[in-house]
Amino acid sequence: MFEQKPLICTPLTGKNTEEIIKELIAIVQKQPDLIEWRVDFFEQIAETDKVLFTAEQIFKNSTGIPLLFTIRSHKEGGESIPLAENEKVDLLCAVCETEFFELVDYEASNEIEYIKRLRDVSKQNGKKLILSYHNFDCTPDKSEILNRLQIAESYGADIAKAAVMPKDEKDVLALLEATKDAEASLNIPIITMSMGQLGAISRMLGWMYGSSVTFAVGEKSSAPGQLPIEKLRKVIDLVKETVSEN
Amino acid sequence: MFEQKPLICTPLTGKNTEEIIKELIAIVQKQPDLIEWRVDFFEQIAETDKVLFTAEQIFKNSTGIPLLFTIRSHKEGGESIPLAENEKVDLLCAVCETEFFELVDYEASNEIEYIKRLRDVSKQNGKKLILSYHNFDCTPDKSEILNRLQIAESYGADIAKAAVMPKDEKDVLALLEATKDAEASLNIPIITMSMGQLGAISRMLGWMYGSSVTFAVGEKSSAPGQLPIEKLRKVIDLVKETVSEN
Repeated sequence: MFEQKPLICTPLTGKNTEEIIKELIAIVQKQPDLIEWRVDFFEQIAETDKVLFTAEQIFKNSTGIPLLFTIRSHKEGGESIPLAENEKVDLLCAVCETEFFELVDYEASNEIEYIKRLRDVSKQNGKKLILSYHNFDCTPDKSEILNRLQIAESYGADIAKAAVMPKDEKDVLALLEATKDAEASLNIPIITMSMGQLGAISRMLGWMYGSSVTFAVGEKSSAPGQLPIEKLRKVIDLVKETVSEN
Repeated sequence: MFEQKPLICTPLTGKNTEEIIKELIAIVQKQPDLIEWRVDFFEQIAETDKVLFTAEQIFKNSTGIPLLFTIRSHKEGGESIPLAENEKVDLLCAVCETEFFELVDYEASNEIEYIKRLRDVSKQNGKKLILSYHNFDCTPDKSEILNRLQIAESYGADIAKAAVMPKDEKDVLALLEATKDAEASLNIPIITMSMGQLGAISRMLGWMYGSSVTFAVGEKSSAPGQLPIEKLRKVIDLVKETVSEN
């Protein structure tokens, strides 16, 4: 799935099944390469059967576009949810045991036992695990960003993700440099982004530095700085064409 | 002239007056913001009257687009020419004394007496002086690039220019970082670029980091990595639109 670079991923952020399916149908027409369900926005997250029912509806309406299941934790920029960490992992594992989603995301900062359990269950069910790191406050040193991505790999991630917040243009360049370093030193695909308006350029060009996926707005943004999918794709195609003809 | 960012500059590289005027007429239709005559390509460079005649023809056919007069030295990537350094400066000064060109370019690595003389004559005649630095072998440290731009300013340049060659993507990022630093520390406009295919992205996005001018191919490239003006303008406009709407 990660040979082509970048894959464009659009999030689903509806609060209930109806909203989500409506959002999905609109998004599918824009043909993203990947669709992420941000389950922390789902009001019935505490009812596993409702989550699984909605996951199935998403699967049935996704026209074969690979699906990513993400419960973004509140401490890394997600919504507040009424689940304890072990309940969250139960839910992630339950989804891995269905055919609906190909990928799951979990923060690498969580307790190692939870990560291990999810890694085991996802592997047994042939699902890819993204271990992620988010920093909404700042952009740490390049070496720290690289370190976070390396930790994800060491925990057995199939894909390592880092999203950081820049305070100036140089922070955006630092994220791109760290991405290049990670591409050279890791053996798994990486996903990186510099958030906010300042970081928008990393969503357009991160693939040149090794980022495999860029997140775009289909219907509604799930993080600061995401660009509309149509525009993002236009920029990427134009830059690819321009660079390759040169 | 340098309030808008970036200005797109296209070079004229014809070997004789006829070729140059043909090139100019084609380029003018593409409406660059600036046109550079690369006089080191001109076969009759040793005949001052021929140079001035051609300069006048360019002026008359330039439809008001500002003109830059550049004799790029062989040691910084230009053509071999039959002029000694003092003859070159004579020619640059002679052009400053006409109304044809608004800007002249000279390498900051030349002897200081020559730079001083050209600075005086260009100032007396209300012409802007670009002092430039080119490295076709490598991308020096960020601090060295910044230093080169600072030297240009200390020699009295109206605009400081640095063009360097990357060996990898990180060199391109280093050039962009140095540009950002220079924008913060210098009081004059700067022009920077990372050359070659790897560096092409700096020609598209250098303005985000403070570069005032980007060089594009009108009819014929004058340095490695220059992009066709139509495509470059499209990328810049699309990125500007995308970033500002975000």
